[in-house]
Amino acid sequence: MMKLYGFAVSNYFNMVKHALLYKDIAFDEVLMFPGMDPAYNDKSPMGKVPSIDTEHGCLAEASVILNYLENTYTAKPLMPADEWQRAKINELMKMAELYFELPARRLFPEVLAGQKVSDDIKNEVRDTITKGCRALAILAKPSPYMFGETITLADIVLRYCMVTCKLVAQSIYQWDVLADVPGLREWDELMASADISQQLERDSQAGMPAFLEAIKGKV
Amino acid sequence: MMKLYGFAVSNYFNMVKHALLYKDIAFDEVLMFPGMDPAYNDKSPMGKVPSIDTEHGCLAEASVILNYLENTYTAKPLMPADEWQRAKINELMKMAELYFELPARRLFPEVLAGQKVSDDIKNEVRDTITKGCRALAILAKPSPYMFGETITLADIVLRYCMVTCKLVAQSIYQWDVLADVPGLREWDELMASADISQQLERDSQAGMPAFLEAIKGKV
Repeated sequence: MMKLYGFAVSNYFNMVKHALLYKDIAFDEVLMFPGMDPAYNDKSPMGKVPSIDTEHGCLAEASVILNYLENTYTAKPLMPADEWQRAKINELMKMAELYFELPARRLFPEVLAGQKVSDDIKNEVRDTITKGCRALAILAKPSPYMFGETITLADIVLRYCMVTCKLVAQSIYQWDVLADVPGLREWDELMASADISQQLERDSQAGMPAFLEAIKGKV
Repeated sequence: MMKLYGFAVSNYFNMVKHALLYKDIAFDEVLMFPGMDPAYNDKSPMGKVPSIDTEHGCLAEASVILNYLENTYTAKPLMPADEWQRAKINELMKMAELYFELPARRLFPEVLAGQKVSDDIKNEVRDTITKGCRALAILAKPSPYMFGETITLADIVLRYCMVTCKLVAQSIYQWDVLADVPGLREWDELMASADISQQLERDSQAGMPAFLEAIKGKV
């Protein structure tokens, strides 16, 4: 059976888990924090999580895993067949990562561990997220999902990138990012209301104490 | 005819151009620097280059464009048909971007414009590139290409990420990154010797004065 390595608080982990559950792919979850097990580094380059362990070997990078699952398990698709539409979905997935997720993470030391981040970095991160909001408004109009009536990988990836981004923006800037993109709040509520989202939210809460213990002194 | 927007000094631009030339896809090159033309922002979210303009519309993000071209123009493939191998190639492409290209870019202000970057950032960037070298050694053994006897998208992406990384590592740390991964120097020489690589190197040199003019006061 496929194994999914990672931890329930990680939004990258949750993107992959959401897709696995949605597509009804059988998998075992294996708790793995970065740096927890040196032997894991030989499986997944640099001990990255999430990864999936399959009959072929181990694969890391959430966006790569998601495309692999989509191309291999074609029942319950999370992408249309058309290559252009698939590319536009991947473009939005990449934008979500580059302009919401990765910049927001630069403020984790302050948000998660109370270690002050410099104003320079805060300004840079706010500029990047602002650009991300502008790009998102150009790329997709929620109706109700990002690419129409059916959920796609773009919705799943954006949802978990926005979890990070909303948390950080609210905490550092008292900024309600959802207000910056037309239709984004309604989309966010729709995504949050899905059964899988609610299950993952509970799993994330349940995994929080172990996560906080694992990152102690490491953020 | 497909249009390729961007500029010849950009290594992201060159990844896409290299693949277009390799696959014999007809295209027109349109010079575009970020921020050069406000109307371009409506085509490509946030004015990102490179982008391709096709009969369907505009598409940005080099890795997304490369997969789109590969899936659409199947003659002269740059990926095997097997989904697992395609995923491993995409994993290496992502690693190259995250651990060589993006960190190296953080030192551009000092390398390109003489604006001193802090030692904290320099240490962080060196750590990230060191991790990238370790991951690369796990992911692929050049023989002679990253995934065997045939060139793939992984070779093209890694080549242009390494152009940036080699330049920055040499300039800031006097560090010969190629020495850190077994077989990487021979692979780098093989990639550099290809006719397309040499054409793009000439185009890049020819485009350098316009590039330096365009970034004046902006790095």
